[in-house]
Formats: sequence, C-alpha cells, structure tokens
Amino acid sequence: MTDTLVRPVTAQPRFEAARAASRVLATATSAQKDAALHAIADAVAGSADRVLPANELDLAAARTSGLSAGLQDRLILTADRLAALADAVREIARLTDPVGQVLRGSTLPNGLHLTQQRVPFGVVGAIYEARPNVTVDITALALKSGNAVVLRGGSAAEQTNRALIQVITDAIRSTGLPADAVQTVDDFGRDGARQLMQARGLVDVLVPRGSAGLIETVVRESTVPVIETGAGVVHVFLDAAADTTMAVDIVLNAKTQRVSVCNALETLLIHRGAADRLLPPVLAALVEAGVTIHGDATVCAAFPAAVPATEQDWAAEYYSLDLAVAVVDDLDAALTHIDRWSTHHTESIVTNDLTAAERFLAEVDSAVVMVNASTRFTDGGEFGFGAEVGISTQKLHARGPMGLAELTSTKWLVRGSGQVRH
Amino acid sequence: MTDTLVRPVTAQPRFEAARAASRVLATATSAQKDAALHAIADAVAGSADRVLPANELDLAAARTSGLSAGLQDRLILTADRLAALADAVREIARLTDPVGQVLRGSTLPNGLHLTQQRVPFGVVGAIYEARPNVTVDITALALKSGNAVVLRGGSAAEQTNRALIQVITDAIRSTGLPADAVQTVDDFGRDGARQLMQARGLVDVLVPRGSAGLIETVVRESTVPVIETGAGVVHVFLDAAADTTMAVDIVLNAKTQRVSVCNALETLLIHRGAADRLLPPVLAALVEAGVTIHGDATVCAAFPAAVPATEQDWAAEYYSLDLAVAVVDDLDAALTHIDRWSTHHTESIVTNDLTAAERFLAEVDSAVVMVNASTRFTDGGEFGFGAEVGISTQKLHARGPMGLAELTSTKWLVRGSGQVRH
Repeated sequence: MTDTLVRPVTAQPRFEAARAASRVLATATSAQKDAALHAIADAVAGSADRVLPANELDLAAARTSGLSAGLQDRLILTADRLAALADAVREIARLTDPVGQVLRGSTLPNGLHLTQQRVPFGVVGAIYEARPNVTVDITALALKSGNAVVLRGGSAAEQTNRALIQVITDAIRSTGLPADAVQTVDDFGRDGARQLMQARGLVDVLVPRGSAGLIETVVRESTVPVIETGAGVVHVFLDAAADTTMAVDIVLNAKTQRVSVCNALETLLIHRGAADRLLPPVLAALVEAGVTIHGDATVCAAFPAAVPATEQDWAAEYYSLDLAVAVVDDLDAALTHIDRWSTHHTESIVTNDLTAAERFLAEVDSAVVMVNASTRFTDGGEFGFGAEVGISTQKLHARGPMGLAELTSTKWLVRGSGQVRH
Repeated sequence: MTDTLVRPVTAQPRFEAARAASRVLATATSAQKDAALHAIADAVAGSADRVLPANELDLAAARTSGLSAGLQDRLILTADRLAALADAVREIARLTDPVGQVLRGSTLPNGLHLTQQRVPFGVVGAIYEARPNVTVDITALALKSGNAVVLRGGSAAEQTNRALIQVITDAIRSTGLPADAVQTVDDFGRDGARQLMQARGLVDVLVPRGSAGLIETVVRESTVPVIETGAGVVHVFLDAAADTTMAVDIVLNAKTQRVSVCNALETLLIHRGAADRLLPPVLAALVEAGVTIHGDATVCAAFPAAVPATEQDWAAEYYSLDLAVAVVDDLDAALTHIDRWSTHHTESIVTNDLTAAERFLAEVDSAVVMVNASTRFTDGGEFGFGAEVGISTQKLHARGPMGLAELTSTKWLVRGSGQVRH
C-alpha cells in the first residue's frame, strides 16, 4: 500500500462544516463571541514565530514572479503589523453585537405578536487578493456578527493565510466555539474561488474585496448573492456659489489626503459662472501638491500645463496624483456628467446656494451624496460604525459604508395562541 | 424600397428609457405618484374593450397548445377581474410612500450631519409567467415606491400583457409622469428575459415570480441582483406539550385552507412522546378534509391508509391535498429534519413548553418562525404591509413577506460646512 497525498477535489465538506459551525455561532452569546475574538487577538499578536516564516515564503515567491511593489507592500507582515491586526480585532470585540436587535414589531388584530429580529447570515464568503490583513479582519467581523466564514485569499498570500488561519482556528477552539467556523479554499487554487461562487445554499453571501476585475468576475460567475464593493469614480462639483477657500480645501483634501483609496476624488467639475474665480486658486493648490491636471478644452485654455483629457479620463479611477477637470455650464450639466460617468460611490457639491445643494442631494444617485464636505469621509470608521466591511456600491441590502449590521439578515418571529387563518 | 417590419434586436433603448424615467420618478411627490395610480386604476377598470379581445387570443392559443387548466385559469381576464385589479391598485395608492423615510442619522464630532434615507431602486425588473394580474400589480408597487419597471410576462400572456401595458402607459402619460416608466421585453421572446437578466447597470434588481424552475434559471443566469421568492417546503412540528385541539386546528388550517400557495403546510412532524395522543385526531381531521397522508414507518403502522413516504416526499412542495408526516424522537430530531429539508420559508411549532418554543424560534433558520400559529399567516397582507411584492426566501436585502419598503434602497446624505479629513 502506498501513502499518497491526495488533493481534495471538492470543497463541499468545508462548506458543510462551516454551515454546521454557523448553527452554533447563531445562538452563541455576545460574551462567547467576544472571548473568541480576544483569544484570536492574543494569538495573532503572539504569532510571529508561526506566521512570519510563512510570509517570507510568499514574499520570496512574489519577488520571483515580479508582483508589483504595491502588492508586495500589502503582503508584508511584521511583528508590528501583527500587533496592529490584533488591536483591530480587539476593537471589533468592543462593538455592539447586532444579533438579536429588534427592528420592527407589532401585534396584529388577531393577537399574533410579530417581531423582526437581526440574525446572522450564516456563512459569509470572502474573495480577496494578496492582503493577509483581510484574513484577520473579515474573520473577526464575521464571528462578531455570528457568522462562519469561508476565505479565498489568493495564491500570492497562500502560505501566510494558511499560517494565520491555523493560528485563528486554534484560538477559537481554545474558547469552546467551533474551529470549523473559519474555512479556506486557498489550497484549491482558482477552482476554490469557482466552488465558493457556486456554493449557493451553503454560503449565504459573498463579499469580494479587491480590483474592479476581481469584483466583475465574482458578480458574473457567482450564484451566491454578492455584495459589490469598491470602485469609486468620485466627483466634486464646485457650484457658482462655492466659497473659494472651502473649494480649495475640499478639493485638495479629497484628491491628495490619500490617493489610493476608493473615496478619493477623481473628477472635478466647475460651474462656468465661477470658473474664472475658482480655477486659478484650485489648480494652483493641486499642482503645488503634485497633482497632474487632465483638463477639458476650457481648462486647458486657462491652464496650459494641463494635459488634454480624453473620454478615458472621465471614466478613470486613477488611484494616483491625477485629476480630471471639466468646466460645465450649470448644475444640470454637472448632474448629467455625474450620471454618465459616476460609479455611484460618493459625490460632493461645494456651494452656498440652498436650492442647488438640495437638488444635488436629491438628484445624484450615489451611495453617499455630500454638501460642503470632503469625499474622504465616506468610510465606516468616520461614519461611527467602528469597523468597515467595505463600501457597497450596489443598491441591494447595503449601500455605502458597511458595518456589522450589514453582515446580518433578519427573521420574523410570530408568537400566537392557536390562531388560524379564515 | 420595401417596407419591412424589423424586429428590434436589442432591448437596450428600452432599459435606457426606463432609467431616464426612473430619474423623474425618484423625485416625484407622493401626490403625483398616487394620481398616476388612480389614473391607472380607472383605465384598467374601463379597459374591457381593449384588453378582453387580446386575452381571448391568448386563451385560444393556450387551448391549442394544451396549457394546463390551472395556468389557463390564471390567464383568464373578465370585466370583474379587471375591476378587482383596479381596486388593488387603489389600495396600493392608499399606502404610505416609503421614499424619503429617514432610517438613521447622527451628527459626527466634526459637525457633519449624516442622514440615511430611503430612495427608490431606480429600475425594477420582473420576470413571471402567464399571470396578467402581476403586470398590473407589480407596476403599481414599483411606481408607488418611485421605481420604473421592465416586465417580462411570458409568451402565454403576451397579447393580454401588451394591451394592459398600453392601457397603463396611456394612463401614466395623462397625468404628466413619464410613460417610459413601464417597459416590456415580451416581444423579444426568450431573448427578452436573457437581455433583462444581463442589464446590469441599467436594471437595479430583478424579482422573479413563478415556478421553482423559473426562479432557479434567473438566479443562475442573472448578473442583475435578484430577490429570490417563493418555494415553500413548510413544516409544522407538534411538540410533546402540544394542545390536542390547537394541533388539529393549526394543522388542518395550514394544510387545507388553501393548498396552492407557498405558505401551505407540506410536512408535519410529531414528537414521539405525543404520537399516540395526537396522530389519531390530527390524521382523522386531515383525511376527512380529503388529504392523502404520506407517512413514515411509524405513521403507516399506526394508520394503514397512509402511503409510505419516500425521500421525495420530504422534499415535496405538493401544492395539493397531500401531506408528508413523520414521527420524530424529540425537538432535536425535528430541528435536524427541518434543517435538512426546509426551504427556509416558514415553520411553526405547536407547544405549551416555553423552553421548546424559544429553542424553536432561535434555532430554526427560516424567514418566518412561529409558535402556535398557522403557517398561512406568512403573507404581506396578514403582516399589515398592505401589499405584497412576494415572499423572499433569501437572506440578502429582504427576508419573508416584502412590502413597498423592500422595493427601496437607501442613500446617505452628508451635510457639512467645509469639513476635510485629517
């Protein structure tokens, strides 16, 4: 008899194990779940010996395969980064447990008592790329909201994620909750993602986190319901009645405070009636901050250093110190431009005109619509949610920054005394 | 030059027209929308001359093609049925408009005012089969909640639906709202459904209504987010501490009050400790009502008229006077059976044992979980929603009976005074 290593062909048993664990988690108390989170935090903080050598293997492979410097940076773990991850888990433990919250209720004329209550989804799937911090983060968010989780973290971080998941499941087991609550399909390679996307009935919701291409693939191929997160072609509109200083401050902050995030500004629109007043100080501040201006004809005429913008610029999510700038005839033209090019993430108007502000709030169809504020505020932490699962750009279930409540479903409880229907 | 009838190859212009109309509807007042609904109700009530001849054509085709008697019955319209449809539209007009309702809000430490507000989805797609009443019903629900709608009503009702949609759009136009708010893809045949399922970005959500097969197809093929409705393998569990009279009343009502609906009882589970007491009166009442019992070994031994149940019976949504019946060892065995076979629509326990009742409520993972009540109460009308879009059996966005609020999304409004992020 030979002892061969057989690679499993189906992840079905893992999905079923996650589902069985989810039934235990669904009725676990907040105290039990928080104990597990603190055990995970302590274990992650002390996991350098187990995790960093695995991370070294991934980094060596990344250098060989020529992974971009940006992705390599996201992949690196250090003792400090592990400590920060542990702190983030402790923060999540401190949040209010959404499970059991009563949302609506009534007593019907026939005496039936109805209560709509938050319950965990059951099993949450996560598909992401080369970011081991997401492994810890999404696991903690899922457990806190009573869900089991199935992770697909991408081949570039496979060794790191395997080590982290081992650390996490050991910690969960030590507290008496089921270690099966955290599963991975990373060892199935690309087929793991495929199986996860087809696990309808065993996995209740899928949250893809990563590039637009990754999210598009998941939306197209998944039969499990998906919460789409991410892409942000974010606009600021400087209205005719915009205060000059406020316009400069908000545009500069929205574009340059952090460029590689989805709530950063990508296209600036300026009312023609205020262009002469606003363009010079706004563009000067941007250029001083190192921003390259991609302008329409009016902008290029007024500001020769601008690069002429093409259609691609209006659709671009630069993630860099680049900004598309257009002068528009009026608020209606701004709304039309936004409707055409926005990814419906966040848009902001700068104005002191109440009518313009209210029209902008009412007519822009985005997850977050702002007046006189930097688009960088679209963030679960800034909104006071304490944690962020991602920013939903779809309209079903969750829209905008998602906190723990967005990782729950609801169920109706009906308490009667023998009622039948006539 | 020849004058040929060119069948359009793409429904894209209709999706775009619906989206343009949805922008107008999103900011329409409740009064404007209600005026359109009343115009639709009056027009439908007076549409016998236009609609019934078209309905006759569909019925003639249905008789030729051998459509089942049940489906033919659903297809028939009469002047009385048109009047009833008009009344249903007037009922929807009377409901509270969900658009603009504020769900959450806060003022952040930096002075930003956040408000989360209900907004329409935008464009709702509906895919259904041979039921012209759905054409009127879903259109009224969509318009009331500020949405445009794209309908795909199936070939068996194509003539009827075309006539109804003409009546509806004429009525909308007469009130000044955009008639483009109601679109059909019926004239594209099967390809219409395919195009609708792929209209991601133009259609915000798809609601399939019909057979399990139809819903399965939509879930598999749609890139537009879907709200799954329908299938109900509904259980009642008679606990050891069930009152005999209540058990008989609830089982009889849940099974026989109306058999062809998703909240009707399909599988009855009985605690072994109460089987001797409960089986005889419950089965006698069922048989007297014409119900065929499909029993497990214990049931067949106690009640020889029962048909031996197979695995198919535990999975069956009979939609008929048939009932699967099993004796289980205890509450745990009942929970295990339900977890294995339920479609997570509605389950009810009959008991006077508080611990059993609370465990059942907590551990059964269904949209609606009941104690001492007939499963027939899972219904938007019974729940006091005033209208029902369907009963969601998925966990994302909506679960259980869906009212107008479930046809809305949300958006965050952020009002600032120049805040930037540090």
